[in-house]
Amino acid sequence: MLRTHTCGELRIADCGKEVVLSGWVQKSRNLGSMNFIDLRDRYGITQIVCDDKTDKAVYELAKTLSREYVLQVKGTVRERSSKNTKIPTGEIEIEVKDITVLNPSKIPPFTIEDNTDGGDELRMKYRYLDLRRNCVKNNIELRHRLAMMIRNYMNAEHFLEIETPFLIRSTPEGARDFVVPSRMNPNQFYALPQSPQQYKQLLMVSGFDRYFQIVKCFRDEDLRADRQPEFTQIDCEMSFVEQEDVLQMFEGLIKHLFKQEKGLELGTFQRMTWNDAMKYYGSDKPDLRFDMKFVELNEELQGKDFKVFNDAELVVGICAKGCAEYTRKQLDELTDFVKRPQVGANGLVYIKYNNDGTFKSSVDKFYTQEDFEKVASKFSAEKGDLMLIMAGKAMKTRTSLCALRLEMGSRLGLRNPFDYSVLWITDFPLLEWNEEDNRFYAMHHPFTAPNPEDYPQLLETDPGKVRANAYDLVINGTEVGGGSIRIHDREMQLKMFETLGFTEESAKQQFGFLMQAFEYGAPPHGGIAFGFDRLCSIFAGADSIRDFIAFPKNNSGRDLMADAPNVISDEQLEELYLSLKPVNK
Amino acid sequence: MLRTHTCGELRIADCGKEVVLSGWVQKSRNLGSMNFIDLRDRYGITQIVCDDKTDKAVYELAKTLSREYVLQVKGTVRERSSKNTKIPTGEIEIEVKDITVLNPSKIPPFTIEDNTDGGDELRMKYRYLDLRRNCVKNNIELRHRLAMMIRNYMNAEHFLEIETPFLIRSTPEGARDFVVPSRMNPNQFYALPQSPQQYKQLLMVSGFDRYFQIVKCFRDEDLRADRQPEFTQIDCEMSFVEQEDVLQMFEGLIKHLFKQEKGLELGTFQRMTWNDAMKYYGSDKPDLRFDMKFVELNEELQGKDFKVFNDAELVVGICAKGCAEYTRKQLDELTDFVKRPQVGANGLVYIKYNNDGTFKSSVDKFYTQEDFEKVASKFSAEKGDLMLIMAGKAMKTRTSLCALRLEMGSRLGLRNPFDYSVLWITDFPLLEWNEEDNRFYAMHHPFTAPNPEDYPQLLETDPGKVRANAYDLVINGTEVGGGSIRIHDREMQLKMFETLGFTEESAKQQFGFLMQAFEYGAPPHGGIAFGFDRLCSIFAGADSIRDFIAFPKNNSGRDLMADAPNVISDEQLEELYLSLKPVNK
Repeated sequence: MLRTHTCGELRIADCGKEVVLSGWVQKSRNLGSMNFIDLRDRYGITQIVCDDKTDKAVYELAKTLSREYVLQVKGTVRERSSKNTKIPTGEIEIEVKDITVLNPSKIPPFTIEDNTDGGDELRMKYRYLDLRRNCVKNNIELRHRLAMMIRNYMNAEHFLEIETPFLIRSTPEGARDFVVPSRMNPNQFYALPQSPQQYKQLLMVSGFDRYFQIVKCFRDEDLRADRQPEFTQIDCEMSFVEQEDVLQMFEGLIKHLFKQEKGLELGTFQRMTWNDAMKYYGSDKPDLRFDMKFVELNEELQGKDFKVFNDAELVVGICAKGCAEYTRKQLDELTDFVKRPQVGANGLVYIKYNNDGTFKSSVDKFYTQEDFEKVASKFSAEKGDLMLIMAGKAMKTRTSLCALRLEMGSRLGLRNPFDYSVLWITDFPLLEWNEEDNRFYAMHHPFTAPNPEDYPQLLETDPGKVRANAYDLVINGTEVGGGSIRIHDREMQLKMFETLGFTEESAKQQFGFLMQAFEYGAPPHGGIAFGFDRLCSIFAGADSIRDFIAFPKNNSGRDLMADAPNVISDEQLEELYLSLKPVNK
Repeated sequence: MLRTHTCGELRIADCGKEVVLSGWVQKSRNLGSMNFIDLRDRYGITQIVCDDKTDKAVYELAKTLSREYVLQVKGTVRERSSKNTKIPTGEIEIEVKDITVLNPSKIPPFTIEDNTDGGDELRMKYRYLDLRRNCVKNNIELRHRLAMMIRNYMNAEHFLEIETPFLIRSTPEGARDFVVPSRMNPNQFYALPQSPQQYKQLLMVSGFDRYFQIVKCFRDEDLRADRQPEFTQIDCEMSFVEQEDVLQMFEGLIKHLFKQEKGLELGTFQRMTWNDAMKYYGSDKPDLRFDMKFVELNEELQGKDFKVFNDAELVVGICAKGCAEYTRKQLDELTDFVKRPQVGANGLVYIKYNNDGTFKSSVDKFYTQEDFEKVASKFSAEKGDLMLIMAGKAMKTRTSLCALRLEMGSRLGLRNPFDYSVLWITDFPLLEWNEEDNRFYAMHHPFTAPNPEDYPQLLETDPGKVRANAYDLVINGTEVGGGSIRIHDREMQLKMFETLGFTEESAKQQFGFLMQAFEYGAPPHGGIAFGFDRLCSIFAGADSIRDFIAFPKNNSGRDLMADAPNVISDEQLEELYLSLKPVNK
């Protein structure tokens, strides 16, 4: 080894030791006859002192070493005269005997500091330098720790990690599949998996009753902010279970991670039906770090002279504690916020519950103080509170009010990223009606089982009302995982395909080998998959997943460092029996 | 849970317990008024008894249940009258109260037994059933255990598992790359990684000084027997190390696995230079479970009247202990063996050292008994031994003799798959001369560092003699892993590219971002990668890797179960701006 110690481990007790350190120059300062170097590695920073009087040659060399040079330093540990209490090695320094330059460095294109001067694009291009920054490095280390914890938990629960194939079959509906031309099977293609869904179900048919995998998945879709064409799932499946068993098992996993990584004891996770989540928070992934529950006000506010409310399917609002003294300007900001195209509301009504007990509202002329009192009472509002009300089509209004609720939560500082609110959403609808095609689609996928209470009767009479045996895990308003109990009964599966408008033929074409496997003793089974990139970001209290991926792609799916994707040679195309079509730009 | 216990856990101490088991019908036997079912799950088999007298209905149902039905069984644990000592649950059985058929099964296309009646192709097509067989299931469980042990060892040694991208850049020489057309970047392609080599080196530049990853890699080459287009590597890299550090670290890993999984304490691994391996075993992956070292006999056997030996560059042989009594037929078999095209020798000379002290040879007429005595003495042969000798061009003869040595090892039962001989091969040549191109190629890759003793002088004067700072791990004659210390010095790298005939331009085009990264403080580093599929097969004493992969492909790269690769739709091709060229068959 080119070192005896790392740059993070020497302490006052090591004084007098002869050591060898290797690392990068974080900073070099010359103070007259002394040169100080902060030497950095993955584990920390240690101060190196070169003294003109001790060794002139080493001192002169040290003066020439600039940022990011790689050095091997030999010397003696000694106590510092002026200690740095901010770092664990801050009580000592190395009195240098010898320095070897292991490699010089050009001046990096941005500073290797938490607050770097490099822009996004530059940092992506030089990702290997960006990864040197503590804040990024820490994320990658966190990711490793979480992966280890997950594997150890799953292993202790008798789950087997089984690798499923990456070169699989493209399905006719797989428009979002990445495909891979096969040279050995010309004009044929593999697909990269969007998830190991079918394979993990096959593993259940095989009898591996507890499977998991931390695995890359691929989706060739237009990337929204913070989506990646390749992403990592914690993919899990169990046999001989009902929904409750799955929820208990993975509630255990998430609690384990919070306990191990953060020392947090999370209580039993709250559960909410999809209906309630939509009704009270306007979202299937409500952020419950704060309350501000929706209150429906059709009864209180319709039937007066305010046409907007009278014409609305739903009048609904939230109560912002202590905001009655919002200024005109602040209220206008909120109105502007809800009118943004991303939120899409027509307007916003406010009712201030003043400290003197009176009400002040943007719709004063339509309502009496008594009307407002009734509304306030429905909100359980107190003096000093601000009620914010929207109206319109039910679903759309709820979605808009959800955006406003989150905005108010942020404004009021109720969304601390290191507070954690974890809940299960259950009882999703099994089917979604598509107006264009005039048919039902599976909300998850066609192997999701209906809630036993709704099958078979309700599926016959009112398919849109059938609840799925499906569940999502939501943390701080983000969907972190989701899954379902699967159909294992052939009759039920055929019924389901029928409801979805598949012929037996088309079902076979799309799901052939899984369908066939189901004829050979498929056990009852269900599972879940978590977005690992997202889970990591939540543990770090961060919004973006990008900095939890060592080498991410940008929003166009490009790796700016490697300049991928890129053209390939004519020989390669030839071998694959492919030709390119011109692109109309 | 649809069970209280698994089918592998009930023991005599559980007698009297009311239990619920779920599993598959392994076997059902009707003995008059009793029906016995062997119920199987991942954990074992438990005997289920349905008694006509106890419950007529259950008994009648039981009679109808055939192989691979999935059952839920409720009943009471009781002691068996006739015990089965071969299985851990053999002392008890379940007296059934109730049976629920969770799912019926068609008769499987082959028996779910270790000795199945299903051929390779059928088993691949119904891989989900093949995986139910104990012998295959055990392999998958072994693989999981090894992966856990590897990760825990690496984690304890402060290695971070860091995921590298799957959608990377295709390099001009990447003829064996699988490519992935990008829809968002039309006419451009990603490549799937043949290994994360460049990314792990970048991680070293980033300062993550200990990286590993158990990761899928891809190679689109014509598949030899027992190669897979997707395979799994244990990929590792370390900074601030020399060769000795890497060997120590991973010798530790392999010892750990043998200790944990098999309770075997392996001693310090033998080391052998590539030159010695070729000279004494005719292979860079010698099987050292048995000795039978090559002995060179030019001195002893040339210069007599036997033209074949006199004309040969090399005369070399092995000594098979106790085989002097081989019959004519056995010796002919050996001659036929070496003449097979796969071995490619012209012939084989034998010298029997008879028990009476005389010698009998196929070349008796050219040599005296004294000549043979000298040869025997060089072999340290004893009475009863058989010496087998070949001659010709040195490299070719060694390779042929290697095949014969392995054959003799097998015939003599010296290659027990559960004996383990582990060794390091070191000092590989850095360069390989290519006669066709009239140029050197890197034996590993152009980032492999030369042995410090051979640089820079020998690289100038005799590049073909330069040893690489590279090493392979060989177990039982199979290369299980290999790696090298990498070049981190820019001067040395340029020198290397020059030797390989690259212009600076072409080097940049192929290795651009890694080359650039090396300008920003690359630390000294090196690493290794192990073939995980192969490692698993060696732990199980098996020859083929296929049964250690849950869903393998066949030798044409096809998944017979999913029928992949396959055609994709015109819409998909359209979206990717691709068209197919006709294939001349």
